Amino acid sequence: MSVGPVHSVHPVIAISMGDPAGIGAEVIVKALALPEVRSLARFRIVGNAESIHRAANRAGIPPYWRVINHTQVGNPDATAPQSLPANSPDSHDVLVIDRHAAHDAPIGTVSAAAGHLSFHFVDDAIAMTLRAASDPWNADAIVTGPISKEAWKRAGHGRYPGHTELLAERCGVPSAAMLFHAPADPASNRRELNVVLVTIHVPLMRVAGMLTVDRIARVIEQGAAAVREFGHESPRVGVCGLNPHAGEHGLMGDEDERVIVPAIELARSRGINAEGPFPADTIYNAALRGRFDLIVAMYHDQGLIPVKVLAWDCAVNVTLGLPIIRTSPDHGTAFDIADQNVADAGSMSSAIVLAARLARRKNARTP
Amino acid sequence: MSVGPVHSVHPVIAISMGDPAGIGAEVIVKALALPEVRSLARFRIVGNAESIHRAANRAGIPPYWRVINHTQVGNPDATAPQSLPANSPDSHDVLVIDRHAAHDAPIGTVSAAAGHLSFHFVDDAIAMTLRAASDPWNADAIVTGPISKEAWKRAGHGRYPGHTELLAERCGVPSAAMLFHAPADPASNRRELNVVLVTIHVPLMRVAGMLTVDRIARVIEQGAAAVREFGHESPRVGVCGLNPHAGEHGLMGDEDERVIVPAIELARSRGINAEGPFPADTIYNAALRGRFDLIVAMYHDQGLIPVKVLAWDCAVNVTLGLPIIRTSPDHGTAFDIADQNVADAGSMSSAIVLAARLARRKNARTP
Repeated sequence: MSVGPVHSVHPVIAISMGDPAGIGAEVIVKALALPEVRSLARFRIVGNAESIHRAANRAGIPPYWRVINHTQVGNPDATAPQSLPANSPDSHDVLVIDRHAAHDAPIGTVSAAAGHLSFHFVDDAIAMTLRAASDPWNADAIVTGPISKEAWKRAGHGRYPGHTELLAERCGVPSAAMLFHAPADPASNRRELNVVLVTIHVPLMRVAGMLTVDRIARVIEQGAAAVREFGHESPRVGVCGLNPHAGEHGLMGDEDERVIVPAIELARSRGINAEGPFPADTIYNAALRGRFDLIVAMYHDQGLIPVKVLAWDCAVNVTLGLPIIRTSPDHGTAFDIADQNVADAGSMSSAIVLAARLARRKNARTP
Repeated sequence: MSVGPVHSVHPVIAISMGDPAGIGAEVIVKALALPEVRSLARFRIVGNAESIHRAANRAGIPPYWRVINHTQVGNPDATAPQSLPANSPDSHDVLVIDRHAAHDAPIGTVSAAAGHLSFHFVDDAIAMTLRAASDPWNADAIVTGPISKEAWKRAGHGRYPGHTELLAERCGVPSAAMLFHAPADPASNRRELNVVLVTIHVPLMRVAGMLTVDRIARVIEQGAAAVREFGHESPRVGVCGLNPHAGEHGLMGDEDERVIVPAIELARSRGINAEGPFPADTIYNAALRGRFDLIVAMYHDQGLIPVKVLAWDCAVNVTLGLPIIRTSPDHGTAFDIADQNVADAGSMSSAIVLAARLARRKNARTP
């Protein structure tokens, strides 16, 4: 089995485990236990082996992975991933790249110890995606398990409000945007919904100060490029206003006319079929009727409330503007249900499926 | 037929027609054409007769109303509503209280002429609800058709950002709150959803400045009292945070800890079962699972996005904190589809049904 062909058929996906005190290990173990998910790629779970074993035990899932220490990654003397045997005939190799805490992190609560670990899980996984494609330790995409921002802060990593900002810095891009993808659900007659955010983890009262014509236009472009990858060749983009009723012609705030209108015009001048600004409380219904392939929201809750109301258990987060592919489930650490074997792995499964699909498209273009 | 018994059985509902350039007349005519709606009360449509006739003609609905001039309302020499014969054996009296424009208001667009009319429709309807219960021109509740805030501004009524502020002033209360009620829908397995707003028609960047402990606590109380009227004897109230992730312990804004937490404590000290603040992007899923009877949202889109996504065609707006009962459909003037006979009257029907139910409860308590 040579590296090249395997690579092009089965991408390598690095999965960071998230906060060890949360449900990250559980949803990863459950998602990869599904043959239709595990068959899509080879996996590197960057986490701690103890959490993975514990979650699998609770769920009654027999081990399907091998464990190596994180210090072995990139070591030319270590066994490279490709040379490891598959664990069973119908699965590709799943490696757990293990990093311990000096002290146990308590389950179900915020701690600096857990924040320290989850930060390094993500950082190590990013590093794998930044390795050369020819490097046996390279990953084609990263899927991130949920972290606690407060735990990162306690562990001294508070300058990163979340994954996205860390990814942007490590990849050397000025900023990244978050897109949420809710797959179509024929059972409930729900159409696919794609929502991209112009601002993310900032206090609500600072949003207007961050909205510039260039920034909004760039996110419109990044979002349109992303949904083209999802198969919408000429995406129709609907842009939210900031204020109630999109400001109603300046009656309730002027940002809609002053900043968002020119941003839409700029994006249109670049060939993107963008319209708006529309009142945010009705634009999603237009999308659900099929009028838009992408909605551009100005702030976190404006974009995430409809995504979570409509697609609670299966929405996926995709980071745009990076040189690498990154997806994640759209839920948090769920400390309140940690270690209870009740977490739903639907969103993690969707995130892995989408990462594999995007990695396959990318690898097909760059043999 | 004496006034008293009829009053207690069939409340009188004043319906303001809304902007004549929009879909107000159409949804009113269609809603009251339904026997199950028209049988609930006696109706006073405060509008202009020409718009009503035009909408009915387009919809193929034969007239079921009588027209009087608005100057006759309260005139002791005029025919009082109770003495008018019913229009048909199976309907209660429906009066159109007609007010013309000096010049025609164009259909489907904002105009000062239409703003002038729609302002007076509402104002006249409010005046009817403020008459003594013994007055034959009294109304027990008001249902308001959609107006254009910009048209009000052009007509010189810009000091009222919307219905709610006008109602508060005319009723002599310092402020009113808006609650949105989405009825349960057994067909789609959707639970009832009730959402009350702490701030309404203000620029988003001014929301935090308007959030005080007292104001939030008052809205929590008003909302809890309202959903008790809907039949939830001990309502469980979930309160949204302002910032992403409800601020995540101060990482993204301090209003959640500084203002909303003490407001919840104040409401709890007054015996209300309120909890939070919770992240606004997940609280609605908790409500839909049955955890809350009422959600308290801090601003317009935070409350209205989920209501419209979940209950596009049947959500009702109820104004709290007034001495009178007021409901309205939750849609706007829809200028883009005016005069086309395609508007859905579902929300107007729900608004009338709820107004009649609340008026009946109130009349039963105050014979």
